[in-house]
Amino acid sequence: MASSPHQARGLRALIARSLIILSVLAGTALGRNQVRHYNFDVEYIFGAPDCNEHVVMGINGQFPGPTIRAKAGDTVVVHLTNKLYTEGVVIHWHGIRQLGTPWADGTASISQCAINPGETFTYRFLVDKPGTYFYHGHYGMQRSAGLYGSLIVDVADGEREPFHYDGELNLLLSDWWHQSVHEQEVGLSSSPLRWIGEPQSLLINGRGQYNCSLAAHYSNSSSNQCNLKGGEKCAPQILHVQPKKTYRLRIASTTALASLNLAIGNHKMVVVEADGNYVQPFAVDDLDIYSGESYSVLITTDQNPKNNYWLSIGVRGRKPNTPQGLTLLNYLPNSASKLPISPPPVTPQWNDYNHSKSFSKRIFARMGSPKPPKFYDRRITLLNTQNKINGFIKWAINNVSLALPSTPYLGSVKFLLNHTYDQTSPPENFPSNYDVMNPPANPNTTSGSGVYRLNYNTTVDVILQNANALAVNVSEIHPWHLHGHDFWVLGYGEGRFSRKDERKLNLKNPPLRNTVVIFPYGWTALRFIADNRGVWAFHCHIEPHLHMGMGVIFDIDGRNVKGIPNEALACGATGRLSVNGVHH
Amino acid sequence: MASSPHQARGLRALIARSLIILSVLAGTALGRNQVRHYNFDVEYIFGAPDCNEHVVMGINGQFPGPTIRAKAGDTVVVHLTNKLYTEGVVIHWHGIRQLGTPWADGTASISQCAINPGETFTYRFLVDKPGTYFYHGHYGMQRSAGLYGSLIVDVADGEREPFHYDGELNLLLSDWWHQSVHEQEVGLSSSPLRWIGEPQSLLINGRGQYNCSLAAHYSNSSSNQCNLKGGEKCAPQILHVQPKKTYRLRIASTTALASLNLAIGNHKMVVVEADGNYVQPFAVDDLDIYSGESYSVLITTDQNPKNNYWLSIGVRGRKPNTPQGLTLLNYLPNSASKLPISPPPVTPQWNDYNHSKSFSKRIFARMGSPKPPKFYDRRITLLNTQNKINGFIKWAINNVSLALPSTPYLGSVKFLLNHTYDQTSPPENFPSNYDVMNPPANPNTTSGSGVYRLNYNTTVDVILQNANALAVNVSEIHPWHLHGHDFWVLGYGEGRFSRKDERKLNLKNPPLRNTVVIFPYGWTALRFIADNRGVWAFHCHIEPHLHMGMGVIFDIDGRNVKGIPNEALACGATGRLSVNGVHH
Repeated sequence: MASSPHQARGLRALIARSLIILSVLAGTALGRNQVRHYNFDVEYIFGAPDCNEHVVMGINGQFPGPTIRAKAGDTVVVHLTNKLYTEGVVIHWHGIRQLGTPWADGTASISQCAINPGETFTYRFLVDKPGTYFYHGHYGMQRSAGLYGSLIVDVADGEREPFHYDGELNLLLSDWWHQSVHEQEVGLSSSPLRWIGEPQSLLINGRGQYNCSLAAHYSNSSSNQCNLKGGEKCAPQILHVQPKKTYRLRIASTTALASLNLAIGNHKMVVVEADGNYVQPFAVDDLDIYSGESYSVLITTDQNPKNNYWLSIGVRGRKPNTPQGLTLLNYLPNSASKLPISPPPVTPQWNDYNHSKSFSKRIFARMGSPKPPKFYDRRITLLNTQNKINGFIKWAINNVSLALPSTPYLGSVKFLLNHTYDQTSPPENFPSNYDVMNPPANPNTTSGSGVYRLNYNTTVDVILQNANALAVNVSEIHPWHLHGHDFWVLGYGEGRFSRKDERKLNLKNPPLRNTVVIFPYGWTALRFIADNRGVWAFHCHIEPHLHMGMGVIFDIDGRNVKGIPNEALACGATGRLSVNGVHH
Repeated sequence: MASSPHQARGLRALIARSLIILSVLAGTALGRNQVRHYNFDVEYIFGAPDCNEHVVMGINGQFPGPTIRAKAGDTVVVHLTNKLYTEGVVIHWHGIRQLGTPWADGTASISQCAINPGETFTYRFLVDKPGTYFYHGHYGMQRSAGLYGSLIVDVADGEREPFHYDGELNLLLSDWWHQSVHEQEVGLSSSPLRWIGEPQSLLINGRGQYNCSLAAHYSNSSSNQCNLKGGEKCAPQILHVQPKKTYRLRIASTTALASLNLAIGNHKMVVVEADGNYVQPFAVDDLDIYSGESYSVLITTDQNPKNNYWLSIGVRGRKPNTPQGLTLLNYLPNSASKLPISPPPVTPQWNDYNHSKSFSKRIFARMGSPKPPKFYDRRITLLNTQNKINGFIKWAINNVSLALPSTPYLGSVKFLLNHTYDQTSPPENFPSNYDVMNPPANPNTTSGSGVYRLNYNTTVDVILQNANALAVNVSEIHPWHLHGHDFWVLGYGEGRFSRKDERKLNLKNPPLRNTVVIFPYGWTALRFIADNRGVWAFHCHIEPHLHMGMGVIFDIDGRNVKGIPNEALACGATGRLSVNGVHH
């Protein structure tokens, strides 16, 4: 690879970042940018997300947690106090790139030590880019326990979104189990594996209904009509709209497992944003959304104003055993209790992957968006397989199942604590004779804590390669999420990625995202510039899959990260390091 | 108080401790004393303590944890690895005084930082005194989750117990709930309070039977006969004995809540040891044992050898809603499946407190045991009351409900980190007009983290004063456990302790113990020599009561503790202290 284009890219990246920082500084100097302070007390509360009472992880007594709202260029400061009894906690600000603040990424064992009970840790980070984001726990399976909320970044003062809307509605989607997360974790780590199964309920803004349906009164329903009297915590959050207006629906999915499809009766949706990046607007009747993704869609309330309309979410990609999640689009001044005249939209067949692929392949960057470098410096192919270690079922990447160390990587890399994690990097690829269409010939795998070391400011391609799981004719959807960076999605394909697929990659207008899916037996190609120093997770966003090892770690010149607060590293070997009097 | 008797006592204590240390050193020099190493992995496992499957906290895959066995003078070394997902953990070695090693006492927030997931902490301590001990979690309510096991210290080589026996049997008693401990904790911290209720089952060595009885076939039983096929993990651990022999039964109770009564059909028991101290032998038909206590009793297998006999435990002191726990004394060579000809012994009426008091008052130190100093240097009276803080129900001591800080006291005291806990000591007494026979006139209390500072080598009296709870005509049993020391139990009495009770105190042969009960509406007087530097908990051993604040902290010259390992204090303000480069 010639050095001059590389250097040019490095320079471009440097200029781009400098411009961001300069504009932020300018904004602050002009008094435009604000520092927005939040106090978050994380605690267990009794909730009833789907009308069944359950212990839920809440913030300040709320589930989901409070919505954070800021403007591009603002600094968000969250003083997070752990009010749990025996558990540590962290919060990851999903989609926020943490430019220059890798210690604020909120990933236990990676970017920081878990915050101990009774302690407060302060997250301070720049939200440089408007968009629809969310936050969630990133320790054990605390996200599944309910530790999540929305994070919305508006355009800076004086700036305008590149589309018009009269109002907005915010939908945070999740799934819910009645088995406690503690039990789920033990089952997933047991031999034989105890799989968590499909969720009991789907939640919209933390609300769902178990064992009954809001739409049971339609003739084609076999479930019981929900008998809500009003005022229940699990009652749907009604979406109130005025007729003849345009609304922006912000939709984010923090599901533990479920891939979802969302539709609104009679209303088309125009997709305008994905993961905090503008996309070329396109209209759809329904939208597939995977865990870790966010979208903005515009809807126009141009339907019969005498009616209300269903908004429904249903399970995709796994044989569903969970009723649709429902709420109402309430055309004012209709009563919110007026039920729509038609049943809720029908979720497409769970295994109609062509439907999903067709949606994914319609997503392109909005004109004027940053374009990917034409060349890559390094390409890493990551084969996703289901395997076994001593009879315990795991997920592995190039035959390594990720086992997180107790000392956070960021500290280990910064202070060269090489004994705290495997020094051998995991493989760059997988054997050329591996048959992705069949179960692994040798199902055994290994666990490891090695990292991929990416040179700063280089362009990295990742080919996510799906394969058959342990059982025949099974290959699952995995949404992969990258921390610290957005990436360009260059393309999707079937079977094993090969040279001939190279030409199909989209370098013209690929969308920037932070989460992308691999379809069953398929591959997904993505590209990013490793321009944010730190140690970053890249992993399947399905909570039990990550628990079972489905992730990798990128060290992007973490050795030269400056300014890590001591509080982030007061545990494990970094804690001992400092105890022995070595200054950070 | 004259200084000479005080000094004399100090000298005596110093000589006594020096002799212990010398004898240990001598033992080691002679090669008699051993260092006994254990590796403990704490993890969640699926268990079925009472035949109902449940997640249980286990050690090395076992529940209860492995039995530690050592000889007096040995050093026990436990390398404890936390294999939980998001929870810290510690283990307290209940009854071991930790002479000179206060950091190894295993109390989170008091003697050390909780051990983080993935980390190993090494406990190293002397077991100087033979006896029946146990160990258990001391963080949140992890003891209730199943984190416990036995710790047996035999006499040193060449030494003999002061009683003869042919064999021994070990019984660790506990109680069990089907609701997870995480849920219990949230309920106990909620307003309105959600009380945990009575246990679903009583366990003997971690085994019980829910919703059925091993003894249902007797005509006076209304429960279902257990249908155990053999090999179930919840099947009772049969006590195999030979006829015409003497057995030592070691009995320890680590219940979360239940006070128990234990009896063996047709067999008398001779009590010879309490909490690791020899007592004047006395014979009983049944034995009351409170959480935190241990006893050794001798039984003689002199009954009809053709029969087996029931050993039963039942609930005392609270209106029971839990079936008896049962196992069999199996006279060999009878089959273990041969059921006794009579039903199990009947547990005395739960509120027959005279029965309990009569038992407690029969316990005296064995001749030759250390005697208490004749005078005390300081007397602290601790009123136990149930109160409210902003509507949340708490237990308080002299109107302070203990709220543990996030930085362990031992580090805070040693390094003068005065901001980490309340600097005002809690009151020495309670108002003279307080009516212990009625609910508090003002139910409101405060929470606090202040400590009682006891001068080193002084003699301290504590009067534990019981009172009426929030509801009328309710006063509960509380077993109080002292860390780091044994104390002499000088007496029990009714109502409010007064001058005239002074004369009734037993200074002649009071038993040494580490746990003692206060009876409803009564007082208990105890005395100890504060001769072990450190910061020590003294608290109600009922797990939910401690969670609700029922404890106090004694700082015994913690400032001058030497040799605290850094690993014990790598959290909170002590962690930050060291991060800032200040050496310990």
